Formats: sequence, structure tokens, C-alpha cells
Amino acid sequence: MDTPVILTVALNAALDVTYSIDAELRPHATYRVGTVAEMPGGKALNTARILHTLRDPVLATGLLGGHTGERIAERIPAGLRHRFVRVDGESRRALVVADPADATGFWEPGPEITSEEWQRFRDRFDGLLRVARVVVLSGSLPQGLPVDAYAQLVAAARDRGVTTILDCDGEALRAALPQRPDVIKPNAHELAAAVPDADLSTVDGIRKAAETLRAAGARAVIASLGPDGLLAVLPDAAFTAAPPETVSGNPTGAGDACVAGLARGVLYDTGWPTRLTDAVALSAAAVRSPVAGRVDVTDYLTLRHHIHLKEL
Amino acid sequence: MDTPVILTVALNAALDVTYSIDAELRPHATYRVGTVAEMPGGKALNTARILHTLRDPVLATGLLGGHTGERIAERIPAGLRHRFVRVDGESRRALVVADPADATGFWEPGPEITSEEWQRFRDRFDGLLRVARVVVLSGSLPQGLPVDAYAQLVAAARDRGVTTILDCDGEALRAALPQRPDVIKPNAHELAAAVPDADLSTVDGIRKAAETLRAAGARAVIASLGPDGLLAVLPDAAFTAAPPETVSGNPTGAGDACVAGLARGVLYDTGWPTRLTDAVALSAAAVRSPVAGRVDVTDYLTLRHHIHLKEL
Repeated sequence: MDTPVILTVALNAALDVTYSIDAELRPHATYRVGTVAEMPGGKALNTARILHTLRDPVLATGLLGGHTGERIAERIPAGLRHRFVRVDGESRRALVVADPADATGFWEPGPEITSEEWQRFRDRFDGLLRVARVVVLSGSLPQGLPVDAYAQLVAAARDRGVTTILDCDGEALRAALPQRPDVIKPNAHELAAAVPDADLSTVDGIRKAAETLRAAGARAVIASLGPDGLLAVLPDAAFTAAPPETVSGNPTGAGDACVAGLARGVLYDTGWPTRLTDAVALSAAAVRSPVAGRVDVTDYLTLRHHIHLKEL
Repeated sequence: MDTPVILTVALNAALDVTYSIDAELRPHATYRVGTVAEMPGGKALNTARILHTLRDPVLATGLLGGHTGERIAERIPAGLRHRFVRVDGESRRALVVADPADATGFWEPGPEITSEEWQRFRDRFDGLLRVARVVVLSGSLPQGLPVDAYAQLVAAARDRGVTTILDCDGEALRAALPQRPDVIKPNAHELAAAVPDADLSTVDGIRKAAETLRAAGARAVIASLGPDGLLAVLPDAAFTAAPPETVSGNPTGAGDACVAGLARGVLYDTGWPTRLTDAVALSAAAVRSPVAGRVDVTDYLTLRHHIHLKEL
């Protein structure tokens, strides 16, 4: 039998497009774009790419459509296995206009998925679960999918004994909690939206909010707190894990790196302290990387020794 | 034998993409794009589309590459005949971000054309000249093409007795003039660049600048002057033609409509007064159209009766 894999699910995969322009953006002017850079994006594919960088066995699935979908597939790094389901709509582009000062973002709406396409994906997913040890469900839902789309996938994975890591927010998260996802990873903003009356200004308040989501169904809640690292509320313990203070850079993609760390911890059956340390080290490596969402492996391996883990 | 056609040449065809956003653009913010509209663009294809709207026999050629090239081909209106040469590079997108106040433009650089691809186009062009009465050469040259690319096409058309209408600027225009294009259509900005010491503040000054370009090789110079219409300097006469004062709207694509009017005038062998009247009426109809670069046929037919033509 094959080694089990980490299965990543990108229901709303994107083509990340970066336009570099020479002058600072002013509204209502016209720019000649110097360079156009394109890479596959969306949270789940970012996580898959980081896992592939670490040479972990990962299999990427999800929905791709149209010319943009083909372009995403073509640009998935060689060696990263994928089994996407094709849809009729057009996958979205996430355009960033990078000027000398900062970046401006434009997110296309993405495809509208039909119920027949969703059923085809469900069938594909059920087949892929057979080779999976853990499944990563990340990112927004495209139009046309039922709000309980993630709930359905969590239930299917649970029925097969596959661990689920869910990184989504809003209605999709709320609908999935009763299906008992193994791990959810809200950031501070998502936590505030999910637990509206929470006080997130203190560690205690964040912990209470996380407990609320555990009570609603999540088995472990890993709250990612930007430069403060993360706060983990587990079935029988709670931890904080923080990166060294010296980490600075581009936070884009740090959350997807955190999820990669949690997923490989499940795959290799490490204990929670190691798993959380890894997740924070990978996030910090992503922040420090000059290319958003990438990690330098040596940097990650070094950072692992500089994470402050504390049991609460 | 088939009816001869108007052949339009789009060496740097574009996919015109419009992102509509709800709020006025501020630099360094992030926007969810409400709608994404795509249509084939670039000056020559805009002219071809207008000719097709008028049910004139038109055949579009040029260079298309990559996924964006496929997308351009797919979106050419049904019934508009085309015979593009495929290249390895990626055709450009011309992105407009339309907010409630105005529009911001981002022009991708476009493909790099190899000398082998250019030779393939030259062969295709020579074949298509057999069915052409007039050829429209419009727009910028993609990277990799020789600066005398238009000069070569003008010479090839002239050798076959096909009338040429050239709408380009800068080095490409300068290089083509010695090949004696039949018609060039600079706008005020292009005229100023081509004749640096010209005084374009008076009709006399514009006429003198146009005469300079005639002396350099162009047989007829049609200077397009925005809301003032056009000034035509022909081998044996000169005219101004102006739209009614009431025309207002979006000037994008008005120049391509003007070229369409000139091209159909050649095809149907109308005299210059009719031809110039048509060109201004089509331009004015394009300005008035709610969709940039389109024309309403009835509006055009009506406007023809309200153009002020004056022999100088």
C-alpha cells in the first residue's frame, strides 16, 4: 500500500497574478506593466506547495475551470501531485498591483459551481480519502456551492477516519462545526467574527473564545495571532507558541504555512508541542521569505529551535 | 471570385478586461471585483468589429498567443472571419479597473515574437492580400518585431495593388513612411511626436504638419482631432470634417471607428467627401455608444447627415 498523504482541497483555487509597475499607483491614471508574474494560489494550494517544498507526500485536489484553471494547473510545481475536477466556470485571478510603495489587490469573483459539478467533486473526494491520512480544507467557497460544503467533506473524512484541518470562516465554518472537524485555525479577525461577544485583548479572552468553538464542535482550535504566534486549545491542554521577536517581512501566506505545519504534524504523528512549534516556525519562515507564501527550508529548520512554547 | 475584403492586421492584439468595483479606487487597498468583462481588443480588432457591425466584408488577422490568445479568438463575434497566426508568447491583457468615478488602466507588455513567427506571419499576410482590397494596419508592435514591420507589410500590399491604411506612431510610423502608405491617421499627440517643430494650435499649423508627413511618403494624412473631427490632407485637396457639437461620451475607440470609416470608403470606392463624412460619423457614434468602441448603426446613419465638411 502507498504511503498515506496529506490531501489539500482548493474549492476556490486562484491564479495569483502580480503586476509590477514603476510608479506609485494613482487612481485614474494608466500604467504600462513592467512584469507579469503568475503562480497558483488560494490557501489550500499555498499549503500544498509548502508541504511539497518540505518533500512531504501531498496530493492537491479541488475545482479548476476555464483558461485560468488550465494556467493554474500548468504552473503547479513539477512533482506536486494533483487531481483536480474540471468545472465549466472560469477560475478566479487574484491580482496584485505592486508599486514601489505597496500593493493594491483585486480579487475576481470566481466560477459558479453547478450541483452536478459538486457531486462529481464529492465522488472524487471520496476516492481520494482512501489514500489520505489528513485532509486540509482551506479558503473561501466559490459561488453555487452549498454553505455546508465543508461540513459534507468533514463528515465524509470523519467516516473514513481521516483527520480534518479546516481553515475557513463565516457561514461555512459555522455550518461545519457540528460535524466535529479535528482542527480549525481561525485568525484573530475570524475568531472575532465567529464569537462576536469575545474579548480578544487578553490571552484569557482568546482562550475563552476558542473554548466556545470547541463547545460548538471543533476538537482543537488553533488561533493564529500574527506576530504573537498562536494559541492552541486542545481536548486536554492549552498552549501558546510564539516566534522570535526578530521575525519581520510579508505576512501573506503565513497562515497557510501554519496549516502546513499542523498537517505534517498529524501525518508524522508528532505530539502537540512539536506540532505547534513546527507550525509557528513554518509561519515565521513564510513571513521572512522574499516571495510571499514560500519558505526557505533551512530558515524553517533553524527557526524551530527559537520558538517559545508555553503550556497554559 | 470572392468579394474583396478589408483585411485588418492586429500584431499586438489584446484581451480587454474590465474589472468593475463598487468603491472609488484608493491605492494599497484590496477590492472584491464585482464583474469581470472581457472582449477582444487592440486597435485593429476594434476596427474589424465595427466593420462587422456594419456587415462589411472584413477578415481579421494578426498574432495571437497562449491562453489569452485563445480567449481573444473565442470572443471574436460570431461571423467575423479571422485567420490569426499562433505564437508561443502570451497575448497581452489590457486591464481597466472601472470605479464609480473613473477608470484606471494597466497594460500588460505582451508577447515577444521570434523571427520565425514573424516569417510565418509574413507568409500568411501575403496569401491574404490576394483577397483584400484594403488593409488596415493599426496599433503597437509587440516586442521582438523589427521596427520596419509595418514598412514591410505596406510594401507587400503596395506590390499587390492593395490600399494601405496605417495607424501607428513613433519609430514604426517613421520607418513605414518611405514605403508610401496610402493613408495614415495620426491623432494630435502622434502628429506632435512625428513633427516636433509643428504648431498644432491652428488649422494652418496642423495642415503644415500633415504636409510634412506627406512629403515624407504618406499619400493622404487624416489627422484626428478629437471633438473637432478631422483634418484631411489629400494628394489634391484638403478638408476639415467636424461632428455636431452635441456629441459627448467616451472617446475610447473613436479613432478605430474613424479608421473603419476610411477603410469602407476605399472598399466601396466612395469619393473623399463621403469617406471623410463617414469616418467622422462613425467616430461620433463610437463616442456616444455606452460600450467603448461599439457603434449603434442607426445612430451612425443619422449622424452622417450632421457632419460639417469644409474644403480648405
